[in-house]
Amino acid sequence: MVSRKEVAKLAGVSEATVSRVLNAAGPIKEETRRRVQDAANQLGYVPSALARNFARSKSGHLGVVMPYVPKAHLFSAYFFSEMLSGIGSKARDSGLDLLLLFRKPGEKMDYSGLFRQQKIDACIILGARDDHDELEALKRLQEEGRPFCVMNHHFAGQSFCEVDADHVEGSRTAVSHLIEQGCKRIAFLNGPDIYSNSTERLKGYRTALQDAGIEYDRELLLEGNYSRRSGLEASATIAGRLNDIDAVFAANDRMAIGVMQGLRELGLGVDQFPAFIGYDDSDVAEMAVPPLSSVRVPFYEMGVLATSKLIPDPLERISALELTGCASIRELLSTELIIRASSIRQ
Amino acid sequence: MVSRKEVAKLAGVSEATVSRVLNAAGPIKEETRRRVQDAANQLGYVPSALARNFARSKSGHLGVVMPYVPKAHLFSAYFFSEMLSGIGSKARDSGLDLLLLFRKPGEKMDYSGLFRQQKIDACIILGARDDHDELEALKRLQEEGRPFCVMNHHFAGQSFCEVDADHVEGSRTAVSHLIEQGCKRIAFLNGPDIYSNSTERLKGYRTALQDAGIEYDRELLLEGNYSRRSGLEASATIAGRLNDIDAVFAANDRMAIGVMQGLRELGLGVDQFPAFIGYDDSDVAEMAVPPLSSVRVPFYEMGVLATSKLIPDPLERISALELTGCASIRELLSTELIIRASSIRQ
Repeated sequence: MVSRKEVAKLAGVSEATVSRVLNAAGPIKEETRRRVQDAANQLGYVPSALARNFARSKSGHLGVVMPYVPKAHLFSAYFFSEMLSGIGSKARDSGLDLLLLFRKPGEKMDYSGLFRQQKIDACIILGARDDHDELEALKRLQEEGRPFCVMNHHFAGQSFCEVDADHVEGSRTAVSHLIEQGCKRIAFLNGPDIYSNSTERLKGYRTALQDAGIEYDRELLLEGNYSRRSGLEASATIAGRLNDIDAVFAANDRMAIGVMQGLRELGLGVDQFPAFIGYDDSDVAEMAVPPLSSVRVPFYEMGVLATSKLIPDPLERISALELTGCASIRELLSTELIIRASSIRQ
Repeated sequence: MVSRKEVAKLAGVSEATVSRVLNAAGPIKEETRRRVQDAANQLGYVPSALARNFARSKSGHLGVVMPYVPKAHLFSAYFFSEMLSGIGSKARDSGLDLLLLFRKPGEKMDYSGLFRQQKIDACIILGARDDHDELEALKRLQEEGRPFCVMNHHFAGQSFCEVDADHVEGSRTAVSHLIEQGCKRIAFLNGPDIYSNSTERLKGYRTALQDAGIEYDRELLLEGNYSRRSGLEASATIAGRLNDIDAVFAANDRMAIGVMQGLRELGLGVDQFPAFIGYDDSDVAEMAVPPLSSVRVPFYEMGVLATSKLIPDPLERISALELTGCASIRELLSTELIIRASSIRQ
């Protein structure tokens, strides 16, 4: 293996200069830089990433904290794979590798320790939720000035760097569309309120009703847990109240499809279905029977944006490694209502 | 931040001894080991992962090479997320972090370079295919004695460490079931033959026909690319030959669902559908209308097994980092036919 010493000899400079050039550390004359680079190329010198990162105190890794997803709960595959794709695409362009960090059930995450141990230079948190330990861990990161970004969750009263979609507006638009189709008794199958996603959807639902002068009725709220199974379970309740319910707005596509499946198993034909709108516009929405109207969330773009916020100058590969603290601003991307057969009432 | 020096002072040993204990490098008296450990605990000393790994020449990372999946092709989300879950779960238990490495379109992967740069200690290759550059890169890894494992693909004539499922038998079972249901003209919508997955499925299809004394007819073969869209495209051909075709075996669920969707768009009711069997038993199989019979592939277990093969003694966290070359054996896990309404003929 070619050593730094040989590169230095060929270029006629010191070993320290070779390091400075290859690590882009400190000012260097252009002429020297080129000489070293040419010598390194000529000899096929590959600097050890470990040695380089050790010298720089940088790992070159963007940590991505994944939620704990037990095997049975892979319902989340779509939105995680989309967010991860966006994060991965941006990180790759910036010369950073993705280090996946899995939450363990019942274990406190020591985010701060990951930085202290220099395992990661920056961090994106997926699948966060309102939880005391989680909040404390993130507050500590912020106090220490670590670059991190929370995706798809909002911690009220904090000023974390967050990237999310506008779920209030997304839900308002969906419910308004149902009202335009003549629906008045709109059941809302929401997720648990430990997720800001759920509370924001409820807000949008209520706003749409209010705008149309329709009274909010708690009896129309149902709670699931974002799984298809929980939709299937809710279907019995909905089937028993079909003379009172003319539409179902579900907080994600999986639950909407679970309800449809349940109604079908109870012997109902598509022509007896209430109007349906799901949320996420995941790949299954289009496959549903009838095809499911849904609120499209730009998960991929959210992943790109979150990564961009942690990398100030993505055009320059070297400076991309100099990660900075993320400006503490919550960024909300727009959603889009995709209308398919399930919500059209003639 | 507490330094190694302070730990050494409190324990009454040299800094080198502190390093040896905390890196589990070389023989150490139990009494000394305990003294250093106690001092480190008392002071809350956190060794830098970078410094430790640099000293050991180990990164502590298991690299996972991901295929290039353009945004539009996230059809693969299910099987990748399942395999990754299995890999992640095993790696996590062994104290290794997962480093995700994305293939770039049209770029040669320098797997060997990832090891030379000490970015990874071992590697799992997902989404491999028969391709000259890919094969050369893997042969080089093998020559260099690097620990790696190829998942869900077979390189014929090589003796790589591979973990796969028995797709010949999986396909044979599926087609035999269709024959038992009285089907004789079974269309086979396969994927491209650059994937061993596809050629193995064809072998199983032919074996089942042969076992039943049914002549193999090339006219019944259709090629898609494992996307739902390619199933949708094949549906026109199938619809035009429904008096000649009484069943469709598709090489994955997505394509089967695409065909169903296409037939439905052409105005056909479920009672006019041919029998259907998909493959993978992904989460969408159960949601299909009619529910789709499918060949279940143990992707999660394959991920666990591939990781285990690279980690000789997963029970011991320290020795887990001493990764070894993987025995060059191809391991095939069994598949299971899951029968649902789509393939039942009364």
